[in-house]
Amino acid sequence: MKPFHPTPKTLMGPGPSDVPPRILEAMARPTVGHLDPQFITLMDQIKSLLRYAFQSKNPLTFPVSAPGSAGMETCFVNLIEPGDTVVVCVNGVFGGRMVENVTRAGGTAVVVSDEWGKPVDPQKVEDTLKAHPESKILAFVHAETSTGVLSDAKTLCSLARAHDVLSIVDAVTSLGGVPVKVDEWGVDAIYSGTQKCLSVPPGLSPISFGERAIAAIEARVSPVQSWFLDLSLVMNYWQGDGGRSYHHTAPINAMYALHEGLLMLHEEGLAAAFYRHQSQHENLRDGLEDLGFSFLVEPDYRLPQLNTVRLPEHVKDEAAIRKSLLEKHDLEIGAGLGALAGKVWRIGLMGASACPKNVEKCLGALKEELG
Amino acid sequence: MKPFHPTPKTLMGPGPSDVPPRILEAMARPTVGHLDPQFITLMDQIKSLLRYAFQSKNPLTFPVSAPGSAGMETCFVNLIEPGDTVVVCVNGVFGGRMVENVTRAGGTAVVVSDEWGKPVDPQKVEDTLKAHPESKILAFVHAETSTGVLSDAKTLCSLARAHDVLSIVDAVTSLGGVPVKVDEWGVDAIYSGTQKCLSVPPGLSPISFGERAIAAIEARVSPVQSWFLDLSLVMNYWQGDGGRSYHHTAPINAMYALHEGLLMLHEEGLAAAFYRHQSQHENLRDGLEDLGFSFLVEPDYRLPQLNTVRLPEHVKDEAAIRKSLLEKHDLEIGAGLGALAGKVWRIGLMGASACPKNVEKCLGALKEELG
Repeated sequence: MKPFHPTPKTLMGPGPSDVPPRILEAMARPTVGHLDPQFITLMDQIKSLLRYAFQSKNPLTFPVSAPGSAGMETCFVNLIEPGDTVVVCVNGVFGGRMVENVTRAGGTAVVVSDEWGKPVDPQKVEDTLKAHPESKILAFVHAETSTGVLSDAKTLCSLARAHDVLSIVDAVTSLGGVPVKVDEWGVDAIYSGTQKCLSVPPGLSPISFGERAIAAIEARVSPVQSWFLDLSLVMNYWQGDGGRSYHHTAPINAMYALHEGLLMLHEEGLAAAFYRHQSQHENLRDGLEDLGFSFLVEPDYRLPQLNTVRLPEHVKDEAAIRKSLLEKHDLEIGAGLGALAGKVWRIGLMGASACPKNVEKCLGALKEELG
Repeated sequence: MKPFHPTPKTLMGPGPSDVPPRILEAMARPTVGHLDPQFITLMDQIKSLLRYAFQSKNPLTFPVSAPGSAGMETCFVNLIEPGDTVVVCVNGVFGGRMVENVTRAGGTAVVVSDEWGKPVDPQKVEDTLKAHPESKILAFVHAETSTGVLSDAKTLCSLARAHDVLSIVDAVTSLGGVPVKVDEWGVDAIYSGTQKCLSVPPGLSPISFGERAIAAIEARVSPVQSWFLDLSLVMNYWQGDGGRSYHHTAPINAMYALHEGLLMLHEEGLAAAFYRHQSQHENLRDGLEDLGFSFLVEPDYRLPQLNTVRLPEHVKDEAAIRKSLLEKHDLEIGAGLGALAGKVWRIGLMGASACPKNVEKCLGALKEELG
């Protein structure tokens, strides 16, 4: 066995996205202790930069020391107590995963289903909340990575408020790519990932909890089932006044990378980043349509950062083409999941991957492969 | 806010340890997709190298995508079902954390207590297993990071076998520093960390499960409470035959670093690595004793990689000295925890930190600071 020197790939799948050299370099800086004052300063800056990204003043905003699925679990296990009812909107893989989380935390999931490729229907959600006045939480996916659909988080969160339930929002694929307005929308708990529109290697899950969510945690009668994800403990490490208390050892170098990625987002500015994702999406869309692809998702709910397209009819062996793209063109795109497997591709324009060079490369390679 | 350029420190605390430039460089290689065949090959090599480190043939050997505490939780939540009795040996902080894990997983913990600084007493364990024939699991910490004590894992695991209970072993601080013989000792489930004697940045937790542990997972009647840590799901990603199925996005660049660190351990060889830790410990020990320090732990149970020493009597403000070591000498050592706070220091010689240069630096700085 030898040191691993990967052949670099252009990452245009559903994540990870291309990681800029600046972020990789930051990750390789010398490891310091997790209680070193230098690192504590870094943690404070990360919290502050995440608040910028989430458009929130929430003090309880920090990255969970594990990938997005652990951020999801952090939200569910801290807010659910056995017997709680949770309305979960399912319009793709990640809504389904939420249901798993609810059940395993001892809650009862009331599912609001929408077709894969459609956004969550606020009317159905309202009807369900009315029919289930015992509900404690409404959970939904803002940007479904399995389909490329954007749901109307503002409306859904206002329904949660109107029915006095807490909202849990999956922003894994939305953060940094389209607006995520935690305070304006009244989101109670939200989680994201680093490897999508932040263009940071995977491994951390930024979360933010508002006052109502914290009050629910403080009012718990049963302990959180996970020790590792128990916010009442993790909080003391991330925001202890006059000294952090040790909880677990943070992934130090991953934090360096997240800090650098958030700094780059701050330098560019949210509005510019959203515009870049949208304009590159439009270029890619035009090119894909010219090649005979059609979009799964209606324009109003289409994620610029994740383009889910039906294959042209003459394409028979889609897996072979993806393989050829990866091997001959060093270009990764995503396959369809579940019922969409073999029928669609998911082409990501996330973070640094949302650039003219990538759009051009992708269209050029597809033209060649599709003949 | 600006890019973070930490002042490098010599890391001689209880972890993280010094990370060699070779590992940092590996971590900064281009991120590829988590389903890219190149990455799958890397995963296979990591599993194989971990088997070498654990001295095991266990097929189910891989790094959990989160720090050591999550590795601990993986062992407990997968093996415990509500109502199970678990004998937990507590002789420091991490045994206490195991009790938390048992309780939160719905189990009943029967605690075998030993004084902080003493090893787990096999006689007490045997008596407890006899008194609690309903026990399903025996859990203990091989190398207590809070005290620097090594317990007799071989004897404890043979007691577990004799009483037909499963063993869960915490090898966070032992792996790579002292022998950890999973197969020879008959360990059923074991977890470790990357940031101790492997000298890899924190963020992953290598685990290994034997046949008996896997049978217990397969025989479960209730689902594992954690979705993220459910081995029946994670296994399909790490060892699916004929294609891995997506579970979560692995921390790709952290895997590069782990691979490189394990490769370095393999190149050096386990025996040489253990000898290096032991011989550097002896050099440090002699110097510390000359300076008036005395060891908390008896020689037979002393961890070479973690030297817990009582302070010389004339030392009044130990925190000020640690601060000065960190700021003036760029040297990090560890404070005492719990009842030992203010009374001991924990000086690590873990992984790359176990070298003559560090021993010399530490002794020189202490001589200067203690006057």
